[in-house]
Amino acid sequence: MHAARADLQALRAVGAEALGTMALLAIVIGSGVMAERLASGNDAVALLANTLATVLGLMVLIELLGPVSGAHFNPAVTLVQAARGALPRGRALPYVGAQLLGAAAGAWLAHAMFDLPILQFSTKLRDGPGQWLAEGVASAGLLLVVLRATPQRAATLVAAWIGAAYWFTASTSFANPAAAFGRMFSDSFAGIAPASVPGFVLAQLAGAAVGLALHRALGPTRTAAG
Amino acid sequence: MHAARADLQALRAVGAEALGTMALLAIVIGSGVMAERLASGNDAVALLANTLATVLGLMVLIELLGPVSGAHFNPAVTLVQAARGALPRGRALPYVGAQLLGAAAGAWLAHAMFDLPILQFSTKLRDGPGQWLAEGVASAGLLLVVLRATPQRAATLVAAWIGAAYWFTASTSFANPAAAFGRMFSDSFAGIAPASVPGFVLAQLAGAAVGLALHRALGPTRTAAG
Amino acid sequence: MHAARADLQALRAVGAEALGTMALLAIVIGSGVMAERLASGNDAVALLANTLATVLGLMVLIELLGPVSGAHFNPAVTLVQAARGALPRGRALPYVGAQLLGAAAGAWLAHAMFDLPILQFSTKLRDGPGQWLAEGVASAGLLLVVLRATPQRAATLVAAWIGAAYWFTASTSFANPAAAFGRMFSDSFAGIAPASVPGFVLAQLAGAAVGLALHRALGPTRTAAG
Amino acid sequence: MHAARADLQALRAVGAEALGTMALLAIVIGSGVMAERLASGNDAVALLANTLATVLGLMVLIELLGPVSGAHFNPAVTLVQAARGALPRGRALPYVGAQLLGAAAGAWLAHAMFDLPILQFSTKLRDGPGQWLAEGVASAGLLLVVLRATPQRAATLVAAWIGAAYWFTASTSFANPAAAFGRMFSDSFAGIAPASVPGFVLAQLAGAAVGLALHRALGPTRTAAG
Repeated sequence: MHAARADLQALRAVGAEALGTMALLAIVIGSGVMAERLASGNDAVALLANTLATVLGLMVLIELLGPVSGAHFNPAVTLVQAARGALPRGRALPYVGAQLLGAAAGAWLAHAMFDLPILQFSTKLRDGPGQWLAEGVASAGLLLVVLRATPQRAATLVAAWIGAAYWFTASTSFANPAAAFGRMFSDSFAGIAPASVPGFVLAQLAGAAVGLALHRALGPTRTAAG
Repeated sequence: MHAARADLQALRAVGAEALGTMALLAIVIGSGVMAERLASGNDAVALLANTLATVLGLMVLIELLGPVSGAHFNPAVTLVQAARGALPRGRALPYVGAQLLGAAAGAWLAHAMFDLPILQFSTKLRDGPGQWLAEGVASAGLLLVVLRATPQRAATLVAAWIGAAYWFTASTSFANPAAAFGRMFSDSFAGIAPASVPGFVLAQLAGAAVGLALHRALGPTRTAAG
Repeated sequence: MHAARADLQALRAVGAEALGTMALLAIVIGSGVMAERLASGNDAVALLANTLATVLGLMVLIELLGPVSGAHFNPAVTLVQAARGALPRGRALPYVGAQLLGAAAGAWLAHAMFDLPILQFSTKLRDGPGQWLAEGVASAGLLLVVLRATPQRAATLVAAWIGAAYWFTASTSFANPAAAFGRMFSDSFAGIAPASVPGFVLAQLAGAAVGLALHRALGPTRTAAG
Repeated sequence: MHAARADLQALRAVGAEALGTMALLAIVIGSGVMAERLASGNDAVALLANTLATVLGLMVLIELLGPVSGAHFNPAVTLVQAARGALPRGRALPYVGAQLLGAAAGAWLAHAMFDLPILQFSTKLRDGPGQWLAEGVASAGLLLVVLRATPQRAATLVAAWIGAAYWFTASTSFANPAAAFGRMFSDSFAGIAPASVPGFVLAQLAGAAVGLALHRALGPTRTAAG
């Protein structure tokens, strides 16, 4: 009985990760398509719109699905939480699987809404030390937010961090291996060529580890300045 | 005595739905007119302005009128809440009537402020599977927010969802049969041709049903991840 | 002793009204000047910037000075609060005087920062029924927010309302006789010709009265939908 | 034992000041570079993006690092807090040192991400009474926010103030000697020529003193209007 209930909760959590990551990618890619269509070559205006949609949508998704699954939507977050013991180890693999499936589904959902070919691959190369450093910085900061924000403010602060990092990192801050995976399937504003994905994912995982180390160096989250 | 008081509350609730929906449509259409006038053909900038005004205004309206009527301003929300028993059944019809009247009045108020002919009809066709899918996605998400957000955050999250969906759905997210009805009366940036309204409304109602089903599949809103 | 303390509090309240209204006008006019300079003719981008600065700045001013004076910065608010008995009657006149002086000082401060002639008058006519209706709508809504928002959310909601109304009302929402007075002294993006001020002020006061009437019609602010 | 613990806390606080100021400058300069690249000459759109990134990022940094160090990231704030006794006197110098080092490191981090020469100096002169007045106004307001905001809202209000001041002050509101120091190392949108830094710093310190005086004149922060 209790076991059945725990199974149901686990199923809901994995489902929430798939649903949330699908919605996140649909938001990122869909708003990129819309922005590119409307901005007629003004890339700064397009990225402003992409940023606004991502910040607002990500905040909603984390706040709604946080109580169900923790609202990771991001394998780097899942791996760190499993490593810290904040997520049962056995849940890490299903979470990551759900995130990757959700991410691809989100790209396809965006394409379906915008009457684009469902299946496509990005040709936009995103490479080089500057890009990788940017992904590392964005991911380290994201983990710091995830690990140090109060529960009430986590959704707002994660969304705000990603919004800032869209602009101040040279890579427009994917900061999420599932996002890199899903965006690979979209030959649009938000896409990334498959050949560039491994470099991004490595940089993200390295950044997440740096974020965890910084979190530990900073000490308990409720230390008063004294 | 008690009956008279309940009657007064019911009247206020219906009045709040009319007032709020009127203000919402005046905001959506008015800011669309202003944006179109000032943006001189840059549609991305115009939609950014339209989004900003809608997000800020919708948050205010829900927060102010929520305690009076629940701040639906949307027949899809009203029907779902009545179906769930969260709204007395007998109130659904007056709510929807007030929302439709308010929506038309809001369009006319916007026209009066901008010295436009009061009575007009949109000629902007919004059709096709991509548009309908987009309305379904936007409406499903909206219902998830309405049904799962904490009361303190509902206004902010509904507004944020609509703001994101203005960009990531191909239809710019009406997500509201009363909005579709009211925008029909405006031959402007935010308008929709009368012939396109039935398709939008069907898609919105289907999306709302999907949102309710997803809400139930995700379980109680305060489940801890366990 | 008590009397001296009450005098000091009254003085601080009046000072806070002058300081806050000065800062508000410096924000509105200064950001208008900056936006006009940078936007090179793109009025939609200029109004977006003007809106962003006003929303952020107004929220800060109300939240900081609210505990000192109530943070009216607006004779229409002061008159309504005095009429309702929420402000001691004897304070209304000093408040309005401080607001008008502060508003003019704010315009001059903005000019000084931007190396413009300190003393100038706007030549921008803002007239006609559409403009007056817009000011009435903006002011009625503002009063509804002031009278119905919870104290914790008042600053955010007032700022959000003004931000929305910058776009959806045809007048870009002055909604404040002191703002109209102060903007008269600035021949810039945010200015208003002296000849247009009386019409705006009358419309604002009429709108404020409508807002008060709507507030009363909607009943107590904590009515549950029932 | 206790002494060792206090030492560890002091070390963490100083580290948090370095980390936070580094991140802040990386955000300000990095988003300026990105905005300039994408905006192709539209400076208003570039400053909008720069503002958005700064507001979102600054809010995150203050909220995360506030419990560790107070999240000054700003020598003017540190000096005022030490003068008021809100920061142990002996901590002022290490704080300021960490802020200056962090600021330079942040500029270099931004350059590394964007594949720019790491070491560079700005050639953008920012001089004259209007600019200095602007820095004074921005800094006075910043100190008022720091000294009067409730702890829960301080991060949001500081970020909002800076966002407003980016637009309404003629200097785009550095309001921070460490920011002036760090931006000196970047020949980009956000830079300031070394020769202009002393004027900015003096104006900022004068403004901070005005802010402290205004704070005292306004009385205790929880005075009810009475």
